[in-house]
Amino acid sequence: MFKFDLIHESTDSNARLGLLSTPHGEIKTPVFMPVGTKATVKSLDYKDLNSIGTEIILANTYHLAMRPGSELVAKMGGLHKWMNWDKPILTDSGGFQAFSLSDRVKINDEGVEFKSHIDGSKHFFTPERAIQIQEELGADIIMAFDECSPANVSESYAKRAMNRTHAWMKRCMNAKTRSDQALFPIVQGSRFKNLREDSAKFMAELDVSGIAIGGVSVGESFEQKFSAIEWAVPHLPKSKPRYLMGVGTPDDILNAVERGIDMFDCVLASRLARHGAFWDFDGRHDISNQKFKYDESVLCADLPCFASQEFSKSYLRHLFVENEMLAMRLLTLHNISFLFYLIEQIRYHIKDNSFLLFKKEFLSRFQVKK
Amino acid sequence: MFKFDLIHESTDSNARLGLLSTPHGEIKTPVFMPVGTKATVKSLDYKDLNSIGTEIILANTYHLAMRPGSELVAKMGGLHKWMNWDKPILTDSGGFQAFSLSDRVKINDEGVEFKSHIDGSKHFFTPERAIQIQEELGADIIMAFDECSPANVSESYAKRAMNRTHAWMKRCMNAKTRSDQALFPIVQGSRFKNLREDSAKFMAELDVSGIAIGGVSVGESFEQKFSAIEWAVPHLPKSKPRYLMGVGTPDDILNAVERGIDMFDCVLASRLARHGAFWDFDGRHDISNQKFKYDESVLCADLPCFASQEFSKSYLRHLFVENEMLAMRLLTLHNISFLFYLIEQIRYHIKDNSFLLFKKEFLSRFQVKK
Repeated sequence: MFKFDLIHESTDSNARLGLLSTPHGEIKTPVFMPVGTKATVKSLDYKDLNSIGTEIILANTYHLAMRPGSELVAKMGGLHKWMNWDKPILTDSGGFQAFSLSDRVKINDEGVEFKSHIDGSKHFFTPERAIQIQEELGADIIMAFDECSPANVSESYAKRAMNRTHAWMKRCMNAKTRSDQALFPIVQGSRFKNLREDSAKFMAELDVSGIAIGGVSVGESFEQKFSAIEWAVPHLPKSKPRYLMGVGTPDDILNAVERGIDMFDCVLASRLARHGAFWDFDGRHDISNQKFKYDESVLCADLPCFASQEFSKSYLRHLFVENEMLAMRLLTLHNISFLFYLIEQIRYHIKDNSFLLFKKEFLSRFQVKK
Repeated sequence: MFKFDLIHESTDSNARLGLLSTPHGEIKTPVFMPVGTKATVKSLDYKDLNSIGTEIILANTYHLAMRPGSELVAKMGGLHKWMNWDKPILTDSGGFQAFSLSDRVKINDEGVEFKSHIDGSKHFFTPERAIQIQEELGADIIMAFDECSPANVSESYAKRAMNRTHAWMKRCMNAKTRSDQALFPIVQGSRFKNLREDSAKFMAELDVSGIAIGGVSVGESFEQKFSAIEWAVPHLPKSKPRYLMGVGTPDDILNAVERGIDMFDCVLASRLARHGAFWDFDGRHDISNQKFKYDESVLCADLPCFASQEFSKSYLRHLFVENEMLAMRLLTLHNISFLFYLIEQIRYHIKDNSFLLFKKEFLSRFQVKK
């Protein structure tokens, strides 16, 4: 049910083109996956997502497990049916949010005990429970339950977390019962070269359909982030898609694709939109800025998205200043479309073996906000 | 540029079918006009509005005059262009909100002085200013600046307000310069039969393309509301559309159509949606109700609206409980579609001379929430 075809490797970098087949359709890689935390990409419906060419979305296991509960989703026929989305879905394992969002977290080799950030109710997530929840949710790609350590931990702490992640991956594989879901393991190892290499080698040996790199975008430096990829990738099989979790600025995507990454997800595109920020080829801007008050120009006429092409910045600024929901929706559509357009350009230039030149030209104009 | 064709008068009541032509297209009557207070029907874009068959929308002069100001809208090419809506628009005069929303209101024969509810800035609305603002906004149908008195005023107060409304209407007509906008006067007279009759007769004499009935839905009883229509309608020309301002529950629409009303607007459909309430043929319901938690049924399979047909109550309840914007948007689409469907049924049964029977059958099932 799952197949990954490596279609082209760029001659100028580790960038590559692929095609990932899933029970709900094919995904061209590199791919950006919009995040639908609570079974909805905030403000958008499936028609919106289809209109901008969305190939796969992500949903968050932790949030859905806390409310309404995966049992409810299962009873309603699973995520695809419940949320009216017939294309691929990926769910994370819930581990990252159990560590970062909840209260009174206690980790041991068995699993993670925590209190819900919503109502303080006590929960215990184990690899087995994370798989059970994800089987009830019913996504096409499900993620291993891992321990994602902060950027500043010691090597011994990072090593213990990595070993735990490896042991938990085995337990996830044993717990898994559905054949229509692909389980991706997650490479850990924090900022340590030897650990990242060990973890990549461990995951490379497994019978899985894809491999993720986790523990990035957790507060580390630019160098640490991309070192983590550079250390892991040489040990990962070329025949499997590589998913860099939680990464999604235009510049980070370019840098990661260059290093051989195929899949991305990030809430930033939609979160920025809800705060009135939008991207164009010059970088990031705030729609509330006075300078847009009488600006008749659209966000970006080049993007195949009606939110980008058809509304003046003047009108969008008005909607945002007035706290109108339509502002958030149109900016969300635009920002995700901007990443999709970037990904399209990336795919074109990988095939053309001109990826590095494209990256250089794009970044020479795009002002990165540090 | 404006023409009203009376197409059919029901033999069983005062209900009638008409066709109102405007510079931005034709409107079949009876018609329900969704309210886009700040130049956006909350949460919806023009594609949403078109998808459910919207023929005309309303925007609020007071809100747009306070922010961003009608000068800005004029500079951006007027409301139609600015908000991407190429069908008819109606703007109210701003009077109603100047009275009800703002602070320190002082009324005299010249106009109304008040402080903005947003920033306390001082404003003075006169009939001339209300027309100027509405000419800058550029709607197809604009409304006279009137004094809308509360339901409980004395007859002498109501008479003074009515006379002022008549004098102001003359001033509005003199101030008007654009030939591509139709100015509707507003019948006042509160709960007094002689005043309602006098006001209707006064407005009936004017060279205008349509006539509104105002001062209803301001706290009066059911009897008072429909008496106001019954007293006015016999004195209004059959050849002009009649617009009942601010009315929009299913039962009120039915009762008003029966009495000869052609046009309606109300924020209720969209406001209820944002609070999680929806209509179906049985009445009004709250999506947050526990009973919908596992309910796989859709809101209303009969409505030609994807929000009504394609999402389970279980999923919509989840979205609403999680305060997801998509809940508000889908429920808004549904509630407006419900009124459009009701209007379609009304039109069919007027033509069929079976309006009263339809009304009786609809209301026998539809539970009115008092």
